[in-house]
Amino acid sequence: MNATGIIVEYNPFHNGHLHHLEMTKELTCADVTVAVMSGYFLQRGEPALLGKWERAGMALHAGVDLVIELPYSFATQHSSVFAKGAISLLDSLGCSSFCFGSEDGDIDTFEATANALQTRQADYNAAIKMYSKEGLSYPAALSRAFLSLGLSESFIDLSKPNNILGFHYIQAWNEIDSGMKAHTVTRKSADYHDEHFASPTIASATSIRKALFGDGDREKIRSLMPPESMQALKAYEDTYGSLHQWENYWPLLQYKILSTPIEQLRSIYEIEEGIENRIVECARQSSSFSECMNRLKTKRYTWTRLQRMLLHILMNVSKEEMRARSDRPAYIRLLAMSASGREYLRQHKKEISLPLISKLSSADPVEAALDIRASSIYPMGLKDMNARMVAMKREWSTPPLQLQKS
Amino acid sequence: MNATGIIVEYNPFHNGHLHHLEMTKELTCADVTVAVMSGYFLQRGEPALLGKWERAGMALHAGVDLVIELPYSFATQHSSVFAKGAISLLDSLGCSSFCFGSEDGDIDTFEATANALQTRQADYNAAIKMYSKEGLSYPAALSRAFLSLGLSESFIDLSKPNNILGFHYIQAWNEIDSGMKAHTVTRKSADYHDEHFASPTIASATSIRKALFGDGDREKIRSLMPPESMQALKAYEDTYGSLHQWENYWPLLQYKILSTPIEQLRSIYEIEEGIENRIVECARQSSSFSECMNRLKTKRYTWTRLQRMLLHILMNVSKEEMRARSDRPAYIRLLAMSASGREYLRQHKKEISLPLISKLSSADPVEAALDIRASSIYPMGLKDMNARMVAMKREWSTPPLQLQKS
Repeated sequence: MNATGIIVEYNPFHNGHLHHLEMTKELTCADVTVAVMSGYFLQRGEPALLGKWERAGMALHAGVDLVIELPYSFATQHSSVFAKGAISLLDSLGCSSFCFGSEDGDIDTFEATANALQTRQADYNAAIKMYSKEGLSYPAALSRAFLSLGLSESFIDLSKPNNILGFHYIQAWNEIDSGMKAHTVTRKSADYHDEHFASPTIASATSIRKALFGDGDREKIRSLMPPESMQALKAYEDTYGSLHQWENYWPLLQYKILSTPIEQLRSIYEIEEGIENRIVECARQSSSFSECMNRLKTKRYTWTRLQRMLLHILMNVSKEEMRARSDRPAYIRLLAMSASGREYLRQHKKEISLPLISKLSSADPVEAALDIRASSIYPMGLKDMNARMVAMKREWSTPPLQLQKS
Repeated sequence: MNATGIIVEYNPFHNGHLHHLEMTKELTCADVTVAVMSGYFLQRGEPALLGKWERAGMALHAGVDLVIELPYSFATQHSSVFAKGAISLLDSLGCSSFCFGSEDGDIDTFEATANALQTRQADYNAAIKMYSKEGLSYPAALSRAFLSLGLSESFIDLSKPNNILGFHYIQAWNEIDSGMKAHTVTRKSADYHDEHFASPTIASATSIRKALFGDGDREKIRSLMPPESMQALKAYEDTYGSLHQWENYWPLLQYKILSTPIEQLRSIYEIEEGIENRIVECARQSSSFSECMNRLKTKRYTWTRLQRMLLHILMNVSKEEMRARSDRPAYIRLLAMSASGREYLRQHKKEISLPLISKLSSADPVEAALDIRASSIYPMGLKDMNARMVAMKREWSTPPLQLQKS
């Protein structure tokens, strides 16, 4: 059986994701699709709206055959680390190809760009560092650094968010020397600009999240996602009392910051350049997460970078802990499978190069330490203490979700 | 001017405290009385019902002339450390005497007991250790160890809580070789057994706290404390939304325990003998502080000892931080003064052997680190975020409370 991998967060799953999934299936003619999905905390350094089982369930209903989890130590990182973790997992699972959405949409341009840069890696890195120091945001520095190398204009535009991510997938793919075939499908900048879409049934996850938390019209969301996604959101709220957002964790984060001596804060992953002092000062003065972020924000740090710093503080992840991790995931955590997915695993058992973990309780407690911690902390964003306890216990013993072909 | 010191927690101030204060004044004929008072967290390892300013205010209204704070690193400790800190502060302030309540009520017996033990200190300590290892509670071990030395029966009964505390005051007083005169006044075991009191207007702080948090009759409490104390309780609830109790801190404590790697937990002050594993297990399963305490409780550890462990975890106090403290307070934090109290300070300025701190912002940030941390964490027991922010800010800039003679 042929498997194609995709890399997702599904926060939440919507019609844009469905579109990408269907184009991928069409393009690669795969027998099964495998989604590597971030767990409880996401690449932008924020909690997922709802639990990993619910998001895996949305994927299954939409036609994904296997959902595996990208561990915390890869999911909540800079694109290059995120990409390396995800591509490694797909490769370990024996996928014959992978496919990502991008603004550019042409895989040859991605490969050419990556190849051109590979020979000039040192210059490129030095230029990114220089532009970052000058105060440019990461995407801007990346794109300026690329231009500064004087390469031809026919390369991809590295100021576009999905191009950046795709570029890192291709770099990771080169680096681990994977036998998978790479594909890309055109994707408009859906996460940032709704107005680019003519279709009234596709909107960005960002705008959907806004509608979910604001006083926006919830009924409007209904047309933007498969009915199963909508049901899953409602069922989660009914069971656990609310969805998750950073604000729910503010009391814990403020407590953590104000109870931690400054030299201990400095030992937290990604806390550099004295920002720990600024974080303490801002946390002391702020009565909400958004207030704290707005105080913290400067031109020097992107919103995402700051959110990731605060997430690592909330998660109490030290530099030392992160250093101790290997540069690729150590196991494959299986979250959900369709009948075809199960059949794929049965047939390809021997080619799968990493231990396949069905329940957190059977993972190596040292390797899985950060994911175990995430599974304790994520439920603390629920206000109701009983709901919190239920969500905490579930993580340990839940086997992969299964969907029988109807 | 002659000053007499007393050592208090006033949680809250009630008629029993008033009685002790008046007996002390009568016995020592002091011009002014000085109360050393625990700050936000108390000797039994729990948060005070209400802030230090409010409790200092209750003391002032009842006739105390100076209220100074016993720092966190002495207040939340075993009696011997608590006593050393408090007696040192009174001595540094130039008090000519101090007076404590005890079940025994005879100062000569205390001195004789302390002297008898001083010559047999090593045997005594060894016996306490042995009985503690056998599973006896601390008071029981103390009393058994004392009997095991074969000393005469005319010494104090070290199974009584106020006798134990008094005994430690006398030991500390010997140790620092203070020139103060020691006094004691008889005090029934008010904190534990209400029924010993004939008077309907005196009850223990424990029973008052129970009535405040339970569905007990609040009107009953009115007769048990001066009207100013009752008003202060009500005003605090009106301003900040609630009084403080351990349960309010449970979400923070559970988060702290479950987000801390086991070797980091082991570095917390007073966490010994592998109890960290048990604490993690109990925290994971418990949805409230009392549930966690009931799971944790064994014959080996007293309730108080466990509460103090959990408090040090909440406060993130490491063994190293505690080791770095000197064995006596480094400054005198002045919380409240009457007109006579102010006059005493003016007249005795030169005899006061430690820096007198009026505002936390003028304290040495290293010396005051734990008290600064306590002043951030204590307000987090308030549910309302705005009240929390107000309480946090107040600590930094509030000058000593003053009461003009009316």
